[in-house]
Amino acid sequence: MKYRAKIEVSLKPGHSDPEGETVARLLKELGYMVDAVNVSKVYNVLIDAQTLREARSKAEEMAKRLLANPTKDNYTISVEEQK
Amino acid sequence: MKYRAKIEVSLKPGHSDPEGETVARLLKELGYMVDAVNVSKVYNVLIDAQTLREARSKAEEMAKRLLANPTKDNYTISVEEQK
Repeated sequence: MKYRAKIEVSLKPGHSDPEGETVARLLKELGYMVDAVNVSKVYNVLIDAQTLREARSKAEEMAKRLLANPTKDNYTISVEEQK
Repeated sequence: MKYRAKIEVSLKPGHSDPEGETVARLLKELGYMVDAVNVSKVYNVLIDAQTLREARSKAEEMAKRLLANPTKDNYTISVEEQK
């Protein structure tokens, strides 16, 4: 079966986010009232697995081993069956 | 009032996604059965607005004017009141 995992990796609070700061500045220059912008990255991964549980556990491993840096990143995972 | 808008910008289908291809290759090298990886970017923007409707309309404008390139990007927006 195929499962679609969405792994969102964001900076932990307190870490500087230069891209977010730049976007916030540009939005203010365009006249928008924004307070803060944080940029995160989403990896949409199509996984082969037997069960949803297995797919979720694989996605968790991928985040830990490759996609997120435990020193500076948080991540969230959602998995659903691919229609 | 403060609203938290989540603007997710992804490549339109058919556009090459070198970062996604690299991640897919690395995941395969690590032994995972993955088919495809697409990378998208999420801008979490804290917006000042009177109503949810106004916040959503501002977020839509921001995506069109600054965050997404209509030639190559799709975007989705979700907005909720900041607690």
